[in-house]
Amino acid sequence: MRKPIRTDIAWSTTDRITVKGFDLCRDILGGVSLGDMAFLELTDRLPTAKESVAFNAIAVTLVEHGLTPSAIAARMTYTGAPEAMQAAVAAGLCGLGSVFVGSMETAARMLQEAIPNPSKKAETEKLAREIVERFQARKQVVPGIGHPLHKPVDPRAPRLFEIAAENGFDGPYIKLMKQVAQQAETAYGKSLPVNATGAIAAVASELKLPWRIVRGIGVMARAIGLVGHIREEMREPMAREIKTRAEEEATAHLRSR
Amino acid sequence: MRKPIRTDIAWSTTDRITVKGFDLCRDILGGVSLGDMAFLELTDRLPTAKESVAFNAIAVTLVEHGLTPSAIAARMTYTGAPEAMQAAVAAGLCGLGSVFVGSMETAARMLQEAIPNPSKKAETEKLAREIVERFQARKQVVPGIGHPLHKPVDPRAPRLFEIAAENGFDGPYIKLMKQVAQQAETAYGKSLPVNATGAIAAVASELKLPWRIVRGIGVMARAIGLVGHIREEMREPMAREIKTRAEEEATAHLRSR
Amino acid sequence: MRKPIRTDIAWSTTDRITVKGFDLCRDILGGVSLGDMAFLELTDRLPTAKESVAFNAIAVTLVEHGLTPSAIAARMTYTGAPEAMQAAVAAGLCGLGSVFVGSMETAARMLQEAIPNPSKKAETEKLAREIVERFQARKQVVPGIGHPLHKPVDPRAPRLFEIAAENGFDGPYIKLMKQVAQQAETAYGKSLPVNATGAIAAVASELKLPWRIVRGIGVMARAIGLVGHIREEMREPMAREIKTRAEEEATAHLRSR
Amino acid sequence: MRKPIRTDIAWSTTDRITVKGFDLCRDILGGVSLGDMAFLELTDRLPTAKESVAFNAIAVTLVEHGLTPSAIAARMTYTGAPEAMQAAVAAGLCGLGSVFVGSMETAARMLQEAIPNPSKKAETEKLAREIVERFQARKQVVPGIGHPLHKPVDPRAPRLFEIAAENGFDGPYIKLMKQVAQQAETAYGKSLPVNATGAIAAVASELKLPWRIVRGIGVMARAIGLVGHIREEMREPMAREIKTRAEEEATAHLRSR
Repeated sequence: MRKPIRTDIAWSTTDRITVKGFDLCRDILGGVSLGDMAFLELTDRLPTAKESVAFNAIAVTLVEHGLTPSAIAARMTYTGAPEAMQAAVAAGLCGLGSVFVGSMETAARMLQEAIPNPSKKAETEKLAREIVERFQARKQVVPGIGHPLHKPVDPRAPRLFEIAAENGFDGPYIKLMKQVAQQAETAYGKSLPVNATGAIAAVASELKLPWRIVRGIGVMARAIGLVGHIREEMREPMAREIKTRAEEEATAHLRSR
Repeated sequence: MRKPIRTDIAWSTTDRITVKGFDLCRDILGGVSLGDMAFLELTDRLPTAKESVAFNAIAVTLVEHGLTPSAIAARMTYTGAPEAMQAAVAAGLCGLGSVFVGSMETAARMLQEAIPNPSKKAETEKLAREIVERFQARKQVVPGIGHPLHKPVDPRAPRLFEIAAENGFDGPYIKLMKQVAQQAETAYGKSLPVNATGAIAAVASELKLPWRIVRGIGVMARAIGLVGHIREEMREPMAREIKTRAEEEATAHLRSR
Repeated sequence: MRKPIRTDIAWSTTDRITVKGFDLCRDILGGVSLGDMAFLELTDRLPTAKESVAFNAIAVTLVEHGLTPSAIAARMTYTGAPEAMQAAVAAGLCGLGSVFVGSMETAARMLQEAIPNPSKKAETEKLAREIVERFQARKQVVPGIGHPLHKPVDPRAPRLFEIAAENGFDGPYIKLMKQVAQQAETAYGKSLPVNATGAIAAVASELKLPWRIVRGIGVMARAIGLVGHIREEMREPMAREIKTRAEEEATAHLRSR
Repeated sequence: MRKPIRTDIAWSTTDRITVKGFDLCRDILGGVSLGDMAFLELTDRLPTAKESVAFNAIAVTLVEHGLTPSAIAARMTYTGAPEAMQAAVAAGLCGLGSVFVGSMETAARMLQEAIPNPSKKAETEKLAREIVERFQARKQVVPGIGHPLHKPVDPRAPRLFEIAAENGFDGPYIKLMKQVAQQAETAYGKSLPVNATGAIAAVASELKLPWRIVRGIGVMARAIGLVGHIREEMREPMAREIKTRAEEEATAHLRSR
């Protein structure tokens, strides 16, 4: 009792490679950028010029965050297996879970579940209040707001909202995200502006990207950044020094016995 | 005796994120595409318009190859851990080694070691003959030529060379790569045209990307494609069916005992 | 404002390696088996003879499940990167998430939250009824019971319970796990015996292993099994054939256009 | 033109799980330890009592090396994705490449290629001299000898050789490994005793484990140790502190601008 298996992504004949219905050589190469190709992978169509600007902006935001735990994991891996750079990038990606990049997914889910149909008028203020009350009741952190370093404002959020607005994507999800931040500030009595995560989740929602795939934007973007970190580790290594210092300090109480 | 550790990639202050000297919000977001951001990670500068076209073309070529072993590994992983999509992409990347994407690295190394200084005039025909003789003597496969499916021509190679030429990158590495293919055809007595791997290696060399980092272009590009496969696996799963069939057939001789 | 970092696992001097207070060469090598070493990693002490039998039994149960999605992911990865066997095992491990091995964690959590203090007398029948009612109310699957293939009984469960009993570990967690299965059978009106996952979770709980680390037993055990699959893939490969068939069937509707 | 696919590892029927011809519940659980199960995966048979001692000793040696780059990669990954412990172990394994655990493979290959048939009398002294000369001529490091910390002796090597001898495995590979160290000391004019890597490679060769699978012993063993590190990271975290310090120091020259 076999189930059929099927893919609609790509196939090849001797003289042609087809991706999502496009002839790779004729229709894509030379004309489609890497970011637009990513949009094609996520939506089955090429972006309009405005979608391209907005999508590339959120993806680019996620490429590089400096010396993150993810970048350190990739560098540590490269030190042991320099012949397998792909495994170092893979190791770095493994940690893009609930704590860091995954939080975008939670924020996008929050927005998309509150507004399942963005073409219908939404009472965003009421929705925002309900969201904050619900998270408060469950003692869960509201996703997409607040930042330990970027205070009082995460500069990426207003810039991404500006880019979205310039390209016609200032719709209900962005409105709701901003109002969630305002309601949370009132409820918790402290500054909780929309952060990069929240802004990306809102813009991705405006671009009609389902929340289940939103983490993927972060994963693909960070793969790019991790290659950059491995490139630097090749030329100016730090992994062994970090390891030596950590080991010395962490075992000092044992070795002194 | 501590060695200093240092990164020049990115850093943040409360109101600013800086990446390679650029203010992320002011200089990059909204103006730099994902592919150009990748170029920045690989070279420490933004590409010119012509470099951008050539670089995006080689990166885009590597995004999607259909149902590869790497895509199947990612889908199998997603089936067991749907809550950790990043781990599925990581699993897919782990196999981009010597057999598939890594072959670009070998080809780029071959070209760059033959022509260490591309601004000096190179006798590419003589170099190509020496390369093929050396690989033949060692009984090693010459990288970057021949393809099991795309015969007599891998259509990506001429298209990438065309894009390179249109943008002023028809330099000695591309010339050498083509001549290696010709010499190999003579030496082995069969059709061995430049394949996508060889063309990408040659164009990357024209873009002055060191061979050690060339595999990274494939790793970052494929991360994008793998997110596309996971998206399809979410909506139209095949991993379990592939597994069930493989298991049934592979253990039939045991179960019949 | 630095926080101290500290490990109590292992350290080395020029002439000695110490692991959890034991001299590796003098106290461990030659006397401690791999399974007991795993117990040491999970508890900070060596097991008694009885603990060793019970712990090794649950770990051994998890080593090998045949051609799982995880084994196929490892084999696909090996095909592309045979020079990086560790990356193939890593790819295989990435999928040990909520659907497969991770379900042990859910079952162990269910048991340990119901009986936080196993030395106090527990009303397991009442607890079992409450557990089943709670999962039913939430429309969640009760973990640790039922199996698609092993019907009416998963043979590993009674065998593991027998081994536990022979070694003095027939305590409240095993009792509760069995009663959860009985209550669920009544509630759902179908056969739902304790499965391997549930039995392992119960025995691990009897061994006082906290639920947060229980998935780790599966991860370490499966790493052993995955090396076995890669060994077979080296000698009798199947990954490429599986890939070729999947690709042909899955893209047939596209290529026929 | 389908090739058959086949596995001989394991299969299941409704009431039985069979692994390498053994009934899991009847023949293995309760009687076979985790280390012996690993031997079964690597050889298709259970070890004799003496093989078990020798094999468990080399596997146990590889479980724990303290705060290695691999352990730090796993901890960094856990910090970002605590819900996916398997991905943290996977990230840690990715770095077990040519620099660390992979060196066992090189040493085992060196020994097994020098003595393809260990039952025939081998002139180990002559072979050792040839090996050292060959590595010297190629300017390659002789694998399995010397250690940056454990001087003048890596205590694991004599202990593993002692265990091997006690169990009847003091054959030609161990003899050759020791003589390679002696010849290298003469050739390089410095102390280069057999290290743990070399001793493990030699004992694994005595156990007739092919060099291509030897890295796998390290991979499976280290998976166990990495679970131990994640357990400690859960209770006494260090990853974020290591990251914070590294980031602060590494970007200080940038932030001061």
